[in-house]
Amino acid sequence: MASRSKVTLALRRARIASSPCTRQLRALPQIRWQSTATTEETEGVAKGTTGSSKTIKFTSETYPEIKRDSKFAELTPDHVKFFKKLLGKDSAIIDGVTKDATEDIEPFNGDWMRKYRGHTKLVLKPGSTEEVSKVLKYCNDNMLAVVPQGGNSGLVGGSVPVFDEIVINMSRMNQIRSFDDVSGALVVDAGCILEVTDNFLAEKGYIFPLDLGAKGSCHIGGNVATNAGGLRLLRYGSLHGNVLGIEAVLPDGTIVDDLSKLRKNNTGYDLKQLFIGGEGTIGIITGVSVICPQRSKAINVAFFGLESYEKVQEAFKEAKGQLSEILSAFELMDSQSQNLVHKVTKNKRPLEGEHPFYCLIETSGSNTEHDNEKLEKFLEHVMENEIVNDGVVAQDETQVRALWGWREGVPECLGHWGGVYKYDLSIPINELYALVEETKEKIKDSGLMGDTDEHPVVDVVGYGHMGDSNLHLNVAVRRYDKRVEKVLEPFVYEWIAKRNGSISAEHGLGLAKKNYIGYSRSETMIKLMKQIKELYDPNGIMNPYKYI
Amino acid sequence: MASRSKVTLALRRARIASSPCTRQLRALPQIRWQSTATTEETEGVAKGTTGSSKTIKFTSETYPEIKRDSKFAELTPDHVKFFKKLLGKDSAIIDGVTKDATEDIEPFNGDWMRKYRGHTKLVLKPGSTEEVSKVLKYCNDNMLAVVPQGGNSGLVGGSVPVFDEIVINMSRMNQIRSFDDVSGALVVDAGCILEVTDNFLAEKGYIFPLDLGAKGSCHIGGNVATNAGGLRLLRYGSLHGNVLGIEAVLPDGTIVDDLSKLRKNNTGYDLKQLFIGGEGTIGIITGVSVICPQRSKAINVAFFGLESYEKVQEAFKEAKGQLSEILSAFELMDSQSQNLVHKVTKNKRPLEGEHPFYCLIETSGSNTEHDNEKLEKFLEHVMENEIVNDGVVAQDETQVRALWGWREGVPECLGHWGGVYKYDLSIPINELYALVEETKEKIKDSGLMGDTDEHPVVDVVGYGHMGDSNLHLNVAVRRYDKRVEKVLEPFVYEWIAKRNGSISAEHGLGLAKKNYIGYSRSETMIKLMKQIKELYDPNGIMNPYKYI
Repeated sequence: MASRSKVTLALRRARIASSPCTRQLRALPQIRWQSTATTEETEGVAKGTTGSSKTIKFTSETYPEIKRDSKFAELTPDHVKFFKKLLGKDSAIIDGVTKDATEDIEPFNGDWMRKYRGHTKLVLKPGSTEEVSKVLKYCNDNMLAVVPQGGNSGLVGGSVPVFDEIVINMSRMNQIRSFDDVSGALVVDAGCILEVTDNFLAEKGYIFPLDLGAKGSCHIGGNVATNAGGLRLLRYGSLHGNVLGIEAVLPDGTIVDDLSKLRKNNTGYDLKQLFIGGEGTIGIITGVSVICPQRSKAINVAFFGLESYEKVQEAFKEAKGQLSEILSAFELMDSQSQNLVHKVTKNKRPLEGEHPFYCLIETSGSNTEHDNEKLEKFLEHVMENEIVNDGVVAQDETQVRALWGWREGVPECLGHWGGVYKYDLSIPINELYALVEETKEKIKDSGLMGDTDEHPVVDVVGYGHMGDSNLHLNVAVRRYDKRVEKVLEPFVYEWIAKRNGSISAEHGLGLAKKNYIGYSRSETMIKLMKQIKELYDPNGIMNPYKYI
Repeated sequence: MASRSKVTLALRRARIASSPCTRQLRALPQIRWQSTATTEETEGVAKGTTGSSKTIKFTSETYPEIKRDSKFAELTPDHVKFFKKLLGKDSAIIDGVTKDATEDIEPFNGDWMRKYRGHTKLVLKPGSTEEVSKVLKYCNDNMLAVVPQGGNSGLVGGSVPVFDEIVINMSRMNQIRSFDDVSGALVVDAGCILEVTDNFLAEKGYIFPLDLGAKGSCHIGGNVATNAGGLRLLRYGSLHGNVLGIEAVLPDGTIVDDLSKLRKNNTGYDLKQLFIGGEGTIGIITGVSVICPQRSKAINVAFFGLESYEKVQEAFKEAKGQLSEILSAFELMDSQSQNLVHKVTKNKRPLEGEHPFYCLIETSGSNTEHDNEKLEKFLEHVMENEIVNDGVVAQDETQVRALWGWREGVPECLGHWGGVYKYDLSIPINELYALVEETKEKIKDSGLMGDTDEHPVVDVVGYGHMGDSNLHLNVAVRRYDKRVEKVLEPFVYEWIAKRNGSISAEHGLGLAKKNYIGYSRSETMIKLMKQIKELYDPNGIMNPYKYI
């Protein structure tokens, strides 16, 4: 590694003026979820997916073992008549039952990853909680299966139908109901788009305590229903802590009126928590109350190279200790991930030389000067104590984006060779990276990895939200190959199960993970979950074929 | 109010050197829950309580309308024999069934407020989760009612029996199971004492994300079961966000093995949330996993006077904006509360003159210098803009405690005249203080308040955790008087209900609030809660006569 004086100098250069390498950083294209290529948000093994596929296979074809449950009624013109009368407006219903509406309905049948595709012939867009209640009650009474749908930016096939389930799309319920600019309590319709809401809050000096790539289209109701994790969890915590109240409708039409704006309310079981991460299987969220923090005035981003995962853990601990209340992101990228990004983008690297590991640290605070000073002290400490090998600090907004590009660019760049086997996992932090090493070893031993075209595997890489113990294990491949899959599974899931990790850190179960829940939950827990499902949705009409 | 230059000067004095008034502050006696007098934690109307009562009435006498449910079996020597064999050790069981053990059992029958007293003849202290499981299964099979008990520092009669319910005391399960000093994930037995655990964490540079007056005796399992709020909620959020996992035992002996150490785990319904605030009515928590933040190195406390509740709200908003990530407490005290404290303690006031409202602000951060600078800037801003009238900042640890004394001393001082009608309420922040004004108006109109002994009411005061919208409405009285009670109730509860507030902000329902839940929850919500109770505890053996 570089000598102490050299790294300290490099740091100071970065602080006092732009260092040559930082100055030359080109901003990577910002990765948005709308991208048609594989992005970080794509998770699980992308078995059937190819980036360029023209037609999307029906889910019922991809998974022929899933059969339509005959207990559900088929849609009739009479059903449609009822819904038309109830919802009134033409814009509130897309009727593919009594006429051909395939084209209009298609966006509601498929997910943005082009991985799942259903057969629905009816989309309902209720405009009020009362309408949702009447719709659900009718469906329940008539054994019509439904799929609640928000912005349809989910990653596990949870928000699109498998067969002919009615899509209940929440986009018409998109009003901000109230905001208290003293307490920060915000109440919104479930169909409010996250970015629109966050922009509203920005004007008030507040921030939504959740951020994620799909913010331009995802609904807050959907975020809550999937317990979305996202980029601000390290700082602001999970939705289980930030959601103050929920309004939801049960299958029998009951309106769960638990839309509290209070931070403290110890009057009975906290039932709203069941809907947070319930993925629309016990009811439809129609309104959400959230406590919003003040927006930070100062944002800093630093990027550095480290020689081992032990050093990464040390750096994380130091960052938590020294940056403490201003630390808002601690992201990990291994050498392979950065090499692949470099190969694809040809961008000049932020640091000279190669390092086994890289970390990106972001701070958000109320005082620029203080934050700069804290960050500088922290960097001096970790460099002087040889915890990190080298580091740079972004000098302006462009460099902030450029440095984030080396992290956010990973998933898109990995797709460059053809495909990616992707896993989104929670692992106790001390063992987090060991999975990448062991997986790589196994893939190497199998002889499937190499530089030439006959080898399906390009490389095995690890990166992710270190601050949340959330690893993205990715295997970049030239083509999907059953032999690779056999090396990976059930190995990865069994490895996770042994460490009491989670096979789905932040994206939920949906259809994709339904069959793997046993690797993260005991039989007892699954049984208890099924009790809850049975209690709230005895007819099983809510988002069938998914979750537990 | 003081002129701008004068208040700024006063502030500077306080900052640069101890101001005369700050210097002369005497530290008030620290209020601990162990105090025999009425303390802040005593909530609800202290109808039957007098601080000096020698014998404590049985709950069954105080509430003759509550009848022992005949479905529960009476304890027999055979039952005791089973438990003795199961638990092995003599120290694990207090047997008042086959012999006289009244004296040994008494502490488990009564609460520390001396308000509730049960008739139990058997205390069990299981030493492991498996033992808890076997105990509960046996009780469930034999229709023996039980009361889970932690440190027995609860405030609503939730942790003591009403009749002959078996007390299952968790004090023998008091081991710290694991701590990850990189992630901050702590796993403990439910019977770990909060202060002991926090001291353990302090050595590691971490802090438990909850603090409260009873920390010297309360159990973490009990904190979680009651969803304790406490002093750090403004900064670290609620237990619903901080608890990562729970191990609990259901009445039928099922062990809920949900002791995840992961921050992110989206694999099914988050069932552990039902136990957080479930008050031991659906199961017994045996283990808890919590995410702990780094301990702050710097603590600052400021105290100031304001001329209206509007100004208090402005100050709170400014504090949130400017102190942002370091703000750890924002406490409100009205003029009356401070006058009464002054009358009792005769301590020199922190500020010269009287002000209609007082606020105490605490900051906790990682950098003393930065925190001081932020606080000073904030104080200059609020004084220059005449948001506050006057203010001082503690210069050392003694002054920190002294300033806190003017807040923490309120409840004890209020008890000085004889008794206190106390309410612990959550109210939307903009209306929070209006309840105090309206209550005072009603009490005045009734002619019950005055300076002479013939008037039962001394004063109506308001104070509390402004940062959490949590008001303590207190009516200090010379003696308990049915006429006062009639003015207060149902007025207060109805007032809260109209504002969608909470009749129990942080202490739970227990026995004390069981009958008032309808003021904070709709019939629908109560019905849904009863479903959950029925689902997990169909025999109703868990903590009967309480909660919902």
